Amino acid sequence: FVASHVHPFWIQFFYFFIIDLFGSLLLMVLKPADPDLKPRYVDMFFLSTSALTVSGLSTVEMERLSSSQIVVTGLLMLVGGEVFVSMLSVFCRTGKQSVAELTISRVNSVRTELETIDSVSTIERIESGTDISFKDLRKSCLKLLGSVILVYWVFFHVTGFVACLVYLTIIPSAREVLKGKGINLALFAFYATVSSFANGGLIPTNENMAIFTKNSGLLLFLVALVLAGNTLFPLFLRGAIWALKYLVKNEELEFMLKSPREIKFDHLLTNLKTFFRSITVLGIMGFMITLFCSLDWGHPVFDGLNWYQKVVSALFMSVNARHAGENSIDCSLISPAVLLFIIFMMYLPSSATFMPVKESEEKKHIGEKDNFKGRNTSVASMLIFPQVLCIIIFVIVACILERRRLLLDPLNFSTLNVIFEVISAYGNVGLSTGYACSRLQKLHPEMICTDKPYSFAGWWSDEGKLLLAFVMLYGRLKKFSERNGKAWTLKG
Amino acid sequence: FVASHVHPFWIQFFYFFIIDLFGSLLLMVLKPADPDLKPRYVDMFFLSTSALTVSGLSTVEMERLSSSQIVVTGLLMLVGGEVFVSMLSVFCRTGKQSVAELTISRVNSVRTELETIDSVSTIERIESGTDISFKDLRKSCLKLLGSVILVYWVFFHVTGFVACLVYLTIIPSAREVLKGKGINLALFAFYATVSSFANGGLIPTNENMAIFTKNSGLLLFLVALVLAGNTLFPLFLRGAIWALKYLVKNEELEFMLKSPREIKFDHLLTNLKTFFRSITVLGIMGFMITLFCSLDWGHPVFDGLNWYQKVVSALFMSVNARHAGENSIDCSLISPAVLLFIIFMMYLPSSATFMPVKESEEKKHIGEKDNFKGRNTSVASMLIFPQVLCIIIFVIVACILERRRLLLDPLNFSTLNVIFEVISAYGNVGLSTGYACSRLQKLHPEMICTDKPYSFAGWWSDEGKLLLAFVMLYGRLKKFSERNGKAWTLKG
Ligand SMILES: [K+]
Ligand SMILES: [K+]
Repeated sequence: FVASHVHPFWIQFFYFFIIDLFGSLLLMVLKPADPDLKPRYVDMFFLSTSALTVSGLSTVEMERLSSSQIVVTGLLMLVGGEVFVSMLSVFCRTGKQSVAELTISRVNSVRTELETIDSVSTIERIESGTDISFKDLRKSCLKLLGSVILVYWVFFHVTGFVACLVYLTIIPSAREVLKGKGINLALFAFYATVSSFANGGLIPTNENMAIFTKNSGLLLFLVALVLAGNTLFPLFLRGAIWALKYLVKNEELEFMLKSPREIKFDHLLTNLKTFFRSITVLGIMGFMITLFCSLDWGHPVFDGLNWYQKVVSALFMSVNARHAGENSIDCSLISPAVLLFIIFMMYLPSSATFMPVKESEEKKHIGEKDNFKGRNTSVASMLIFPQVLCIIIFVIVACILERRRLLLDPLNFSTLNVIFEVISAYGNVGLSTGYACSRLQKLHPEMICTDKPYSFAGWWSDEGKLLLAFVMLYGRLKKFSERNGKAWTLKG
Repeated sequence: FVASHVHPFWIQFFYFFIIDLFGSLLLMVLKPADPDLKPRYVDMFFLSTSALTVSGLSTVEMERLSSSQIVVTGLLMLVGGEVFVSMLSVFCRTGKQSVAELTISRVNSVRTELETIDSVSTIERIESGTDISFKDLRKSCLKLLGSVILVYWVFFHVTGFVACLVYLTIIPSAREVLKGKGINLALFAFYATVSSFANGGLIPTNENMAIFTKNSGLLLFLVALVLAGNTLFPLFLRGAIWALKYLVKNEELEFMLKSPREIKFDHLLTNLKTFFRSITVLGIMGFMITLFCSLDWGHPVFDGLNWYQKVVSALFMSVNARHAGENSIDCSLISPAVLLFIIFMMYLPSSATFMPVKESEEKKHIGEKDNFKGRNTSVASMLIFPQVLCIIIFVIVACILERRRLLLDPLNFSTLNVIFEVISAYGNVGLSTGYACSRLQKLHPEMICTDKPYSFAGWWSDEGKLLLAFVMLYGRLKKFSERNGKAWTLKG
């Protein structure tokens, strides 16, 4: 409804694409820590895409990268995270609104506004008789919202960094691990905070968080950051605005809480919807923990952990299976039933909400959908395509590209693992079943093979890697095609 | 819109459930051909469900069944086929309408009718001023439609049987196979015709149609029956009515062609929709043939066939992957990419239509959806649940039930094969990857194992078999939950 001639899809597309290219070139130019590592461009492009789209798959060993490369990937995750991007979009809108006011005549802008916003609010406004003041109110709301998100974002990064650093300094077992690997404590704390809050999933250790599987405190702490940075962001944001309203009585804050639809910010929802979305997040987590613990309690995947550490690991995995993608255990040891549920969780967009849709509610939804259609005509319609069908096509293409390996090495290159990797890339999650030479040698004992601590994608052909990079970018921009999970809401 | 107090879902549910139980008991009572075979009830229940729901998975060797048991499964497929069931539903509706007219006062029925049918047609009728004659017209339309379908059904069975018998008598290679197995030619011709037209997928040979892989004529001939009996039924039905209209000028026939929505028969569609549905069927077939031939041309799956036989086999598989489920080749040898596409085809309901939805069309759809909601209130709402989610749950439960085998024998009990079997049951298709002892012995050379020529499901535990039987029944009744593929139409 802001007078803009460029569709938001293209803005985000170029934002991601240009930073992606720039990041990959920067990673190529910088020297890796291990002088033996001659990074190939396809791997650096993959890493840059993976960091920027907060996917977290990697085709190189993280410990062989230099500190400067690590910092670059950290910054890529920082600018690619959902909270940061949504904050930028709010600032863009306030900026554009001011420009629009200067250039376009008042009458014109009021008319277009009248046309695009839904009729109920128009009537409300006409009744209140303050059309211009309403517009000003919304503008100042947007500004205030931007500031609130900025404070929210800074708060979690600072407290996250400090708490992480304190934990690493106090607990010797965690500190020793990092010292042994020669990783700076502050760098790790910074990186883990950024990665967790952005739901990036990259960690500068080869083993990701699996090396800290017994540091339950650290895991729990990252869980909070992961939730605050993505799936529970709407809940926390609403909570923050609500708390702020108690401190300072303010017209804008009240307006934001009462009619979040007017703001048109994806993460600001009505009370009811915030409730159902949070319930959905917690419900799926609870189910996953129950399933995982009941099926894999005595299995090798939890070897060497006591019951408390097992439960924390299960919780950590259940939180990370939606978007964050850090892993505290070896995914390839998880039993197939749980793996399937993880695939389902990875597929679910973070906006998925199961709510008992009432008749009146549903009508509103249809109204919204129509609105949405009006907004996205030419560009997004290209992208509107059943999501499941897209994934099937991606997986089939991946199977065609990797067909030789699927034939030779069916235990590692099982179709399930390929599906897992593709959906992990599509959902920007970054969990991976990895690759084990022991599985190859079960069928071909004569073959020589060295285990590598990176994602399964690292064993794919260059074409396969490029496909996954494309899928990650597509997945990051999927909200433009999926109507923000409304398909799920309507059907659920 | 017919005054009925029992929801159509319950009628079909009891129809299937009672015949299923009856069939399974009959199969238990009848003696198998092989006296060594002591059939267990779970297997006979599975077979009965599989035949009745026209799925075609089997957990016993078909050749060990006696002729009487074969005939019973044939009859079960006959009464379970889509054309037969839809014909019954038409006759039911005409019957009920007469009863309703006798019991319910005219005013009442007119009022309810006015409420339920969409407003456009109501206006039309009021304008034409012949409300009662309109109702009579629709009634006679239903009667005529029932007769047309009956003739259609009889025609394909008779010509199918005769042509099949002639082929078997003339071509020595086909005849010798059946003689060697001691199967009566006429019984085989009857069974193959019924099975193909009903899209049942059971064949009285252990190898299904794979033993006739070089009899391209027979395969092509069954392809026509398979298409006539399910996916292209709307096209053929419309063609038949259209041809009939040319022969005898008739008001009812014209009405059926002009306003098929008024008849409310699932397989009678508008011109445009018939066109798009047929295009969808042919397009998917064409894509599948191309994919299959280009990926597997020189592979073992086509061993010993010349190029013509390869193409016919690919065509046969592409037709059978949607609902019929007869196989002319060994599915476990198909490459993963094609297997994934087959899974997608099996998942697609036969009513799936990809059509470019126009604005005006879409509005009509929304209207229809609302109508539909009015019709299906309490019962079907239980079933309205995202279909993909249902399948994920079924697969996860299957993986939990078979978890020991998944661990021990990952090449046969791969998650992909489990998914394949569940979706095959859900889509009532009946293709199966089977089980190969050679794959087990690759990993465990010490284990003793005998290959069995039946579906992969035959190797599952009893709980797994019962789950699949439930999935088959659920799949047969899924049209009540999926809004007749409209979800696909709207999104595609
Ligand atoms: K991630
Ligand atoms: K079938």
